[in-house]
Amino acid sequence: MSLDVFFNARSVAIIGASERPGSLGRALMTNLLEKFKGRIYPINVKYDRVFSLKCYKSILDVPEDVDLAVIAIPAASVPRVVDECGRRGVKGVVVISAGFREIGPEGAKLEEELVSVVRKHGIRLIGPNCLGVYDAHTGLDTIFNPSDRQGKPEPGNVAFISQSGALGAALLDWLKEEGIGLSKFISYGNAADVDEADLISYLAEDPRTEIIAAYIEGVRDGRRFVEAVRKAIRANKPVIVLKAGKSEKGMRAVASHTGSLAGAYEVYKGALKQSGALIVDDLHELLIAIKALRYGARSRGPNVAIVTNGGGAGVLATDSIESLGLRIAELSKGTIEELKSKLPPTASPLNPVDILGDAPANRYELAINSVLRDENVDMVMVIALMQSPALDADELIKILESVGRSEKPIVFVGPGGAYASKRLVMASRIGIPSFKDPVEAAKALKYIYDYSVAYRKLSRKKGVK
Amino acid sequence: MSLDVFFNARSVAIIGASERPGSLGRALMTNLLEKFKGRIYPINVKYDRVFSLKCYKSILDVPEDVDLAVIAIPAASVPRVVDECGRRGVKGVVVISAGFREIGPEGAKLEEELVSVVRKHGIRLIGPNCLGVYDAHTGLDTIFNPSDRQGKPEPGNVAFISQSGALGAALLDWLKEEGIGLSKFISYGNAADVDEADLISYLAEDPRTEIIAAYIEGVRDGRRFVEAVRKAIRANKPVIVLKAGKSEKGMRAVASHTGSLAGAYEVYKGALKQSGALIVDDLHELLIAIKALRYGARSRGPNVAIVTNGGGAGVLATDSIESLGLRIAELSKGTIEELKSKLPPTASPLNPVDILGDAPANRYELAINSVLRDENVDMVMVIALMQSPALDADELIKILESVGRSEKPIVFVGPGGAYASKRLVMASRIGIPSFKDPVEAAKALKYIYDYSVAYRKLSRKKGVK
Repeated sequence: MSLDVFFNARSVAIIGASERPGSLGRALMTNLLEKFKGRIYPINVKYDRVFSLKCYKSILDVPEDVDLAVIAIPAASVPRVVDECGRRGVKGVVVISAGFREIGPEGAKLEEELVSVVRKHGIRLIGPNCLGVYDAHTGLDTIFNPSDRQGKPEPGNVAFISQSGALGAALLDWLKEEGIGLSKFISYGNAADVDEADLISYLAEDPRTEIIAAYIEGVRDGRRFVEAVRKAIRANKPVIVLKAGKSEKGMRAVASHTGSLAGAYEVYKGALKQSGALIVDDLHELLIAIKALRYGARSRGPNVAIVTNGGGAGVLATDSIESLGLRIAELSKGTIEELKSKLPPTASPLNPVDILGDAPANRYELAINSVLRDENVDMVMVIALMQSPALDADELIKILESVGRSEKPIVFVGPGGAYASKRLVMASRIGIPSFKDPVEAAKALKYIYDYSVAYRKLSRKKGVK
Repeated sequence: MSLDVFFNARSVAIIGASERPGSLGRALMTNLLEKFKGRIYPINVKYDRVFSLKCYKSILDVPEDVDLAVIAIPAASVPRVVDECGRRGVKGVVVISAGFREIGPEGAKLEEELVSVVRKHGIRLIGPNCLGVYDAHTGLDTIFNPSDRQGKPEPGNVAFISQSGALGAALLDWLKEEGIGLSKFISYGNAADVDEADLISYLAEDPRTEIIAAYIEGVRDGRRFVEAVRKAIRANKPVIVLKAGKSEKGMRAVASHTGSLAGAYEVYKGALKQSGALIVDDLHELLIAIKALRYGARSRGPNVAIVTNGGGAGVLATDSIESLGLRIAELSKGTIEELKSKLPPTASPLNPVDILGDAPANRYELAINSVLRDENVDMVMVIALMQSPALDADELIKILESVGRSEKPIVFVGPGGAYASKRLVMASRIGIPSFKDPVEAAKALKYIYDYSVAYRKLSRKKGVK
């Protein structure tokens, strides 16, 4: 059964709804009331009304159809209440409640009971022990954190799934701060029913999603997971995976967190790589990969040209590019001659192309255009030390907008403080992945290249061009 | 001869001073006028007055003693002008001008001529091809970037030397944004006279400097460099080195940048490690190391306890700590019993100590105090997913301030957006190294541990306790 109901439900029941300050039920109600356009049914034996809405003792009492139920009541009552949901015709349940497999054998038994109930009714279940979903487009929101602490991204094309609720919420907050638009967020917790493979497979078909990021502690079914990743990639959607529980101690920590068996990391890593997913090592790299790929940048090859107004930053970029297995492009004779004739005599026309500290914006323009035309160049890294008084950084952003139409990926680097940071945001907004550190930009190019290779490989297999 | 004159000069001549908009000479004058308390002598054949100050045709015409001359005139005239400085009794010159060794054999010859002039007069020279110095305490400032683009840190205890001017300036700007206080910044360019070893040796004795960071492309004299680093460490000052030009292509880029021979990186890396310097791979790591060490944190051993309100972040931290070669502390029985008795039943009393998503600030307090008392714990990582409604993050900061008095290093992690970022800044201000990403915090602990080992090793050798 489709997972559509979790994002496009026309009516949602909040089981455990409340107005009590500090309660989960209150946070769920206020968040849903804020943006969700469908009908909302508070359910709680204690109240007649919650936030002016009629409150029902049980979901069985609701007179109209209910698509989705969000459940935030003590674990022991959850199977019974989900059974009522099934009898009432509910199609999906999000179980926020904790106290299942993650707490040990007793919880695991309760979770089995819960699963048998949803199977009996043919309901889909997200959770338990999760934050549930946030759909930035439809406003369906079950994240219960207060809005002054929990930023939620604007609508966009990045889907993010997270086995950990708290970490997922924190990353969501971080995505908001970075200005990265979201399609759907799903914290799926113990994955008793809907798991990472189901979600990736669903998102592969979701028209609002163009890139999928995942924080995963344990994969339930390696084969289904790899199939789902391949399906996404065939739809030209990169899948970025942050896999936790790599070390022995990390695996032990996973077991007490979501009750998953983390599995031997090296085995998964092999399978993941084969699937074409991009594996990242930490939250920062996850962000870099999202920034690199969310505009659809694809690369024909690994050869990078660097254009910089600072030699040192060029050296750092060169080191990173080489150490990541990309290549510093050998510029063609024609390009070198052109650069020699147009740049000042002490500039370096070799790669990295050092256009010197006194470079105005138009010197960037001619150097970038020159390397973009070069057949030996697949991707370009533009570095600007924007502290330089000679450079009109706003003019440079306009140039980036114009050269950014090239099919060859361009990334932008501007180390520094407030002035530079603001221009990085401007460049990001016009579709240029932008970073403070040349090493981050090199990683971005690596993700673009790796994904492009994975896409071509899978496309060829299936006869897609 | 001491390098004091570059930071404590009572009088400075700007050779090439000007009021012409966009000129180097104007930027040098305005920056120096802003904070420097000593006498300033503009020198330029073209003007009688510059910014209301009497302007001299030559430094030979200045009637009073001049300690330091900053030179920003075309390269060809530099040796002659420096000779005049020598005749006038100037003790130090900063040569901003480019066009020396970095442009090829002709420039190298001019640089040799310049060096012979300073040697003849016994003057010390910083540069050429550099930004010169910025002393945050005395206000002596020769960085010519405009103040709306170039942030300059407040006075503090971090010295930063950079072979690259532009990259150094960008990092300075970044340090300012991060709120990291500076003692001295030196961009030493081609290092024709004063080189990295001279500077580190000088900073080892500088009472305002407690930690030394360096961006280095080539080391002129490996043995002197190692000696200088050891001298700093014996004075209990960590030395953090970002070495550029690691790859073959990177070394080629270095040659055309500052004209240095980058040397085989592996050879240097070995020598550097032996010296006790901390080697970092990129600008981000340089910042992490500075943040980790600037408060004087030292560790007895590699055993880390983690206290977290989010299991996922705990897992990521665990993975990083293990992969960096630190250890997840095995908590003593007493600690585990204490945690079991005080934490909720579903919390994890093992390490990572998961105090659950509903943890209020006082649950952090008891868990942190408990692991701090444990003999098996050398360092503590505190992770707070501050999106949680249960946590009063401001209360947590107060707790960190109190537990931060422990001799065991504590680092703080808070992934997220604006709300969390603000609390990270607050925690940094009270002396707790604070990070967005558990992986960064793990690196910080690794730098603290590595430095502590290096310090103990060198101290023992010399009979220092």
